[in-house]
Amino acid sequence: MFLNTAEVEVEGSTIYHKTEYRERRSHYAFYHVNAKIDGFDTDRDTFLGAFNGFDAPKSVYENQSGNTLASGWYPIASHRIELTLLPNEEKELIFNLGYIENEQDKKFDSPNVINKDKAHALIERYNTSEKCEKALLELDVYWDRLLSVYTVNTGDEKLDRMVNIWNPYQCMVTFNMSRSASYYESGIGRGMGFRDSNQDLLGFVHQIPERARERILDIASTQFEDGSAYHQYQPLTKRGNNEIGSGFHDDPLWLILGTIAYIKETGDFAILDEQVPFDNDTNHTDTLLGHLNRSYAHVTNNLGPHGLPLIGRADWNDCLNLNCFSTEPDESFQTYGTAEGKVAESVMIAGMFVFIGNQFADLYRALGDEARADEIRKQTAAMTEAVNAHAWDGEWFLRAYDAFGAKIGSKECEEGKIFIESNGFCVMAGIGKEDGRAAKALASVETYLECKYGIVLNYPPYSGYHTELGEISSYPPGYKENAGIFCHNNPWIMIAETVLGHGNRAGALYRKIAPSYLEDISEIHRTEPYVYSQMIAGRDAKNAGEAKNSWLTGTAAWNYYAVSQYILGIRPEFEGLRIEPCIPEDIRNFTVERRYKNTLYKITVERTGEKSICVKGGTAAGNIVTSDREVCEVTVTM
Amino acid sequence: MFLNTAEVEVEGSTIYHKTEYRERRSHYAFYHVNAKIDGFDTDRDTFLGAFNGFDAPKSVYENQSGNTLASGWYPIASHRIELTLLPNEEKELIFNLGYIENEQDKKFDSPNVINKDKAHALIERYNTSEKCEKALLELDVYWDRLLSVYTVNTGDEKLDRMVNIWNPYQCMVTFNMSRSASYYESGIGRGMGFRDSNQDLLGFVHQIPERARERILDIASTQFEDGSAYHQYQPLTKRGNNEIGSGFHDDPLWLILGTIAYIKETGDFAILDEQVPFDNDTNHTDTLLGHLNRSYAHVTNNLGPHGLPLIGRADWNDCLNLNCFSTEPDESFQTYGTAEGKVAESVMIAGMFVFIGNQFADLYRALGDEARADEIRKQTAAMTEAVNAHAWDGEWFLRAYDAFGAKIGSKECEEGKIFIESNGFCVMAGIGKEDGRAAKALASVETYLECKYGIVLNYPPYSGYHTELGEISSYPPGYKENAGIFCHNNPWIMIAETVLGHGNRAGALYRKIAPSYLEDISEIHRTEPYVYSQMIAGRDAKNAGEAKNSWLTGTAAWNYYAVSQYILGIRPEFEGLRIEPCIPEDIRNFTVERRYKNTLYKITVERTGEKSICVKGGTAAGNIVTSDREVCEVTVTM
Repeated sequence: MFLNTAEVEVEGSTIYHKTEYRERRSHYAFYHVNAKIDGFDTDRDTFLGAFNGFDAPKSVYENQSGNTLASGWYPIASHRIELTLLPNEEKELIFNLGYIENEQDKKFDSPNVINKDKAHALIERYNTSEKCEKALLELDVYWDRLLSVYTVNTGDEKLDRMVNIWNPYQCMVTFNMSRSASYYESGIGRGMGFRDSNQDLLGFVHQIPERARERILDIASTQFEDGSAYHQYQPLTKRGNNEIGSGFHDDPLWLILGTIAYIKETGDFAILDEQVPFDNDTNHTDTLLGHLNRSYAHVTNNLGPHGLPLIGRADWNDCLNLNCFSTEPDESFQTYGTAEGKVAESVMIAGMFVFIGNQFADLYRALGDEARADEIRKQTAAMTEAVNAHAWDGEWFLRAYDAFGAKIGSKECEEGKIFIESNGFCVMAGIGKEDGRAAKALASVETYLECKYGIVLNYPPYSGYHTELGEISSYPPGYKENAGIFCHNNPWIMIAETVLGHGNRAGALYRKIAPSYLEDISEIHRTEPYVYSQMIAGRDAKNAGEAKNSWLTGTAAWNYYAVSQYILGIRPEFEGLRIEPCIPEDIRNFTVERRYKNTLYKITVERTGEKSICVKGGTAAGNIVTSDREVCEVTVTM
Repeated sequence: MFLNTAEVEVEGSTIYHKTEYRERRSHYAFYHVNAKIDGFDTDRDTFLGAFNGFDAPKSVYENQSGNTLASGWYPIASHRIELTLLPNEEKELIFNLGYIENEQDKKFDSPNVINKDKAHALIERYNTSEKCEKALLELDVYWDRLLSVYTVNTGDEKLDRMVNIWNPYQCMVTFNMSRSASYYESGIGRGMGFRDSNQDLLGFVHQIPERARERILDIASTQFEDGSAYHQYQPLTKRGNNEIGSGFHDDPLWLILGTIAYIKETGDFAILDEQVPFDNDTNHTDTLLGHLNRSYAHVTNNLGPHGLPLIGRADWNDCLNLNCFSTEPDESFQTYGTAEGKVAESVMIAGMFVFIGNQFADLYRALGDEARADEIRKQTAAMTEAVNAHAWDGEWFLRAYDAFGAKIGSKECEEGKIFIESNGFCVMAGIGKEDGRAAKALASVETYLECKYGIVLNYPPYSGYHTELGEISSYPPGYKENAGIFCHNNPWIMIAETVLGHGNRAGALYRKIAPSYLEDISEIHRTEPYVYSQMIAGRDAKNAGEAKNSWLTGTAAWNYYAVSQYILGIRPEFEGLRIEPCIPEDIRNFTVERRYKNTLYKITVERTGEKSICVKGGTAAGNIVTSDREVCEVTVTM
């Protein structure tokens, strides 16, 4: 937008910003104060003064206003009100910044005078302290309701603060915004990630399930008939992003995970029967369940020489570009090169396939289709076999095979000997749980990848650029995907530790990156001490421990999912609410209140040294509780 | 570029900024000082401090440095040098900011240590005051040589300063940068305009003709076989911009004007025989002269119901979008809608066709092809007839016919009764010079369009949006194309006034917008008092006289062309150098030194009341002078 078109109106104590409204736009903004004003400015240059910066506006410093009407350039909104306060006197002013959309035929009252009816109504709604307090109270109630779906009291104030307030709050923000409005990475316009948005559901689905349902159908509607998917889509048009296209071979699986999380929370199996288009073309549709089967089949239809999933352009690690081979600056590692490589395989997708596939089999069992469930289990078993045969490196799981069939994430490699993602997902999937490989893998993660500030992505970092690896090797050691600490994938190891029953390890890893525990090192960590960041600089970085890109998607959801469902262990299943804590020893007892379906579960967990479960107002099958009452009290000892 | 990759090296007193050099880039920057340093910073956060802005870096205020090595984020370069100065003592330091490109196989001295050979050589080249003074002297000589091609001494210091220094300097900047790096309008990446770059030649061609030659061939190479042209092209790839495409029906004609300006300056008719591709496809080529004929034919092949040129997406006025009909915000007026409209016609293109066509005929005459010259003259005569029959409104020339055949720029219109562009170009073309219409048109421009700060584009401005007019009606009255003062098209009226012999009017209009004359109203004008701006807010704007978008393309070239060739009247022709001043009365005498082809013309113009021309060292044919000497002295009286 060229600011050459800036226009404003001022009426009483209200400033109207109506840039471009005279032509094709039908919205404007207003800024009101509920007091008589002694002056105003809407022209930025006058407000700031020719030689003053934003930190020292001339109008403020000289206590004057120009009563300017911005025209053509740089509109702002500023009220000047002269207040005299007696000792101890208080005065209250309400400033109201609002946004109005009008219908096309109701845009103007008279030529170029905007229709202010809706603005007047909105101002009226909040023009006294009483009205504002009431509205703020309503907002409190709204958030209390959202946040009361899951509340914990462990006695660890930092843990409770994250689980009860900030982590679910960040989950909602990332659910709403995803990356489509991220300044950090690439400005606006990046769109919602297929992969990201599905993962965001994990941390959001219990808050407003109806919106999660809509999101799942939106995402699935961008899928192709062969199960592949646009990597990104635009939230307003809900259409796939052609510039980046498809070819990220982990994408399809995340749709299964997101949908299952939704059904486990709500019991809404009916969503699976919804007819959902392919590539937004309503002439070509299938049920959502059909979409999930295509997602699943996309993996088995794209296996490589070792029976492991082909990686395509990349898997979750967008910077591991094994079919790219870029040599020119400014080529995008994500779109340069091909997704068609028939050699490069991802062990992470293999782990995902088993982790998500087992849940997919459970879904079919819950639907009563044991035959299809068995079929799926056979495929996850075959994938487990392929991993054991070709992706075990002796002390940990490989990360990938490159386009020449060479190992990535192996002791044979000079750099990048071990990676976090494949070890997280394989152990989460239970691979090697029985034969000790899982425990070995996690021990190797601890030995080689863990540092003071979390788990780095790979070890050792790549010291130079490799065309056959792509963007991962373009970063300085310790940053981003080259041995940075991703807050997004650290929870995979936390969950993996709970799969092996390692509560202390899971808790220790959780506390390493949870923002509330980093308040004391804010001078190192530097981002908000209540928000997860995308990345913390790893031990090989000069400024190890310095975080960047707070608020970004995926991260909040996975941490919330790990702590609420696996560490605290209150986990929705198709059959009911599983209660299976795996907590560090310093947490002796805790209580959780969980609204699940139509029941409020009041759960008490106590360490007594004996395992028991006692349910009042419901029934337990193993550690899975169900109830048809309003309140169900559960006491678990461990 | 993500700054996540920032990397630096420091060696002695030199800071090397090598972000992304480790991967696919082969260039780096350095910042050196020729003194031992007492500290440095390369990490912005440390340099500024956590709570300080750019106006108050902590390092400066606290006289300290952190000796930081930026890693991962935000690199800067800062040296700290402790200086003790005795009374009246002087010390000199040389700071050298440089850019180095290395060959692929010579990027590194050792792993991740960059090859600094070229940087060392560059530092060595400027590391003493003597060397720097010598280099600055060489720069002086370079600019003196460039600027000495045309120098004037009128006694009007402001006029001389613009013509001798600032206007040609701005011409070179716009020739180099065009809009491809303009922050003002749309950031980087807009590309070079086909139309703009041709016009830029008018003001640059005499400075470095070889570069003008290259530019002409580059531009012509983006043309299509039917004579149409990409509206923009990228200066690095030299390829047309698909996003905006073609369909601007004035574009082709500008190529003829630019090429003719080059030949008139250099006499290099051989450029016309160069084989030039279409759409950069070297399998499809024609001579440059063939390209010009296709340009010319593109107009005659696209005539509308009145025999006037169809406008397509727009003509020079990108905002007069007569085939667009956009109703949604965010649609581009330039690419939404069609270029195919068979009704909407442009009187401006008609005037251009005659103005440029007459010169095109002269070119053929100069080539000895009188038959083709006559053919062209018949076509310009036919166009003149069409203008007289259908584009004369009684007191001025119409601007256009819209897609419904309705007049634009007519006394019959409620708003937009008269426009600058068509009146400028028709009179420049000599249309109505004999029958008094030209004089009437210019008088109407003065009456209706001229104001204190220049000539506005149209009168009255459009008060509301009209889908059938497009972007022009989207701007607030007085801004941009809706009755703003375009410094780009004001010279068309100056030249038109000289065509009618109105030296006072031409001079008055020149002085209204020439930046040197606006120094005294800098508080109103606000842009640099030595640089033309794209636009000055018109009389209908709230801040009338406020300029915006200085440096932008086209403007400088046309003003320079008008003042140097038409007002001062030293004008290259195919046959030699025309001397035909048309100056305001307050300039009594002036001298010009003009290097033209291989001769330095020393020209004296004196007002004696009698017309005469006296040539020493050359010959005159009418007022056209030629010479084969190194120096030729010309005295003209008037």
